[in-house]
Amino acid sequence: MPVVSKKSKRIAPSNYAIGVFDSGLGGLTVVKEIIKLLPNEDIVYFGDTARVPYGTKSSESIVRFSIDNANVLMSKKVKMIVVACNSSSSYALEVLKKKFNVPILGVIEPGAQKAVKLTKNKKVGVIATSATVGSGKYLEALQNIDKSIKVISVACPLFVPLVEEGWANNQITADVAGLYLKNLKKENIDALILGCTHYPLLKTVISKVMGKKVALVDSAKEVAHQVEMMLDQRKNRRKTKQKARLRIFVSDKPQSFMRIAKSFLGCKIDEISCIKMM
Amino acid sequence: MPVVSKKSKRIAPSNYAIGVFDSGLGGLTVVKEIIKLLPNEDIVYFGDTARVPYGTKSSESIVRFSIDNANVLMSKKVKMIVVACNSSSSYALEVLKKKFNVPILGVIEPGAQKAVKLTKNKKVGVIATSATVGSGKYLEALQNIDKSIKVISVACPLFVPLVEEGWANNQITADVAGLYLKNLKKENIDALILGCTHYPLLKTVISKVMGKKVALVDSAKEVAHQVEMMLDQRKNRRKTKQKARLRIFVSDKPQSFMRIAKSFLGCKIDEISCIKMM
Repeated sequence: MPVVSKKSKRIAPSNYAIGVFDSGLGGLTVVKEIIKLLPNEDIVYFGDTARVPYGTKSSESIVRFSIDNANVLMSKKVKMIVVACNSSSSYALEVLKKKFNVPILGVIEPGAQKAVKLTKNKKVGVIATSATVGSGKYLEALQNIDKSIKVISVACPLFVPLVEEGWANNQITADVAGLYLKNLKKENIDALILGCTHYPLLKTVISKVMGKKVALVDSAKEVAHQVEMMLDQRKNRRKTKQKARLRIFVSDKPQSFMRIAKSFLGCKIDEISCIKMM
Repeated sequence: MPVVSKKSKRIAPSNYAIGVFDSGLGGLTVVKEIIKLLPNEDIVYFGDTARVPYGTKSSESIVRFSIDNANVLMSKKVKMIVVACNSSSSYALEVLKKKFNVPILGVIEPGAQKAVKLTKNKKVGVIATSATVGSGKYLEALQNIDKSIKVISVACPLFVPLVEEGWANNQITADVAGLYLKNLKKENIDALILGCTHYPLLKTVISKVMGKKVALVDSAKEVAHQVEMMLDQRKNRRKTKQKARLRIFVSDKPQSFMRIAKSFLGCKIDEISCIKMM
């Protein structure tokens, strides 16, 4: 399964950063795994907090926003771009691959690959935003790997606002999960893709509804592995031994983002700034 | 209580439309009341569906978005602008009044006026988005009218996504309302301002929690009355007897907006188009 576009990309200087963007906060789950695996790499993160959420917007808007975000990252000198947002990965990946001369990595394929490794009965569930479910990209990615896999997708629009309200573990969220996942539970799936970067924060609640026999697939680790692989293939790892930097840019509310990012990542953030997008 | 800025505004031609903007769908509650009261007026509505919601964004972003929205309306020839969004009314009203040469009417003052009329024990509750509550504008407006009024405000961030999920009347929404309003219930208020244009759709659920003795204040009717008053003061009512037109513009998803708007307003929409904002 190729992780980069077939067109060969210019190799940017190895001391350039790894760029990561998301519609907001969720992509930090991916940043955390990249830092763990590649502590010597500089990272530039962009969260489009002025236009979050993407999962309820149209494909045209998601593509336009994603191009803006990639342009922000390119202006910060990145050697590759990780699209940490599932809605952007669903609709904008091909456009970004054509438009930008660095490797572009989405989160759909890594998630699909991991799910195929984990499923035994070949029945895989996908939960995601309306945009991601509507795109059918997980279905496509899963069946590209193995045509015989049965895929059942469910949109869970309230999961993101519940996480953002800080209600990841209360009874209401458990009830919402119970309602969203009621029919999925009857389908006898044994792997469930968490197709939105916010959802790993609801693992406990989701696992309680689905039962222990269903493996929850969080693509963040898989994405970090593919970043490593891509850099190695291109001999493009950062060589200097100077301490790596993490810089964060957002389009709104830098201070509140900073607070959450610090506690979530548990590491020093070297720079945080706000960039007006329009 | 003056409803227009003190600086006198140029009087636009009376056949120009009444402009209304909101972050999304909610402002249609205001449009409905204006149509009822002023069926002979053309209306232009703009919903910024590409950047919705506003209630979780910073004041700077809300001001910037509001100026963009007012510019869209001005380009469609409007004789006044109704800011149907509470978050915009909280942060952007003064800027808009300075920047645009037509009367600008927000929803905070009309709501506050109605609440003061309704309260007997002078204890008024306000429920709204985090941005609106954080602005303190309802408190200010209420106490400008009557200093002795006690105001208790509560942010209810999940109400908007619950309405948009179509869950206005299910048990989960009742539980969420129970949790948000638990402390407010103990305060012995007798009037509760629904400080977000989505909230009137949750009236049944909110009323069940708060009890029948608490009057729910939905400012849409009051706003329509102030529009009428403003037009009359300025002798600026539309004079032609040609059928009035309702034109709707959004920044994303025109088709799904159209479907909801049609069923909600129960009247013909003469034009709906999508305007790219950035």
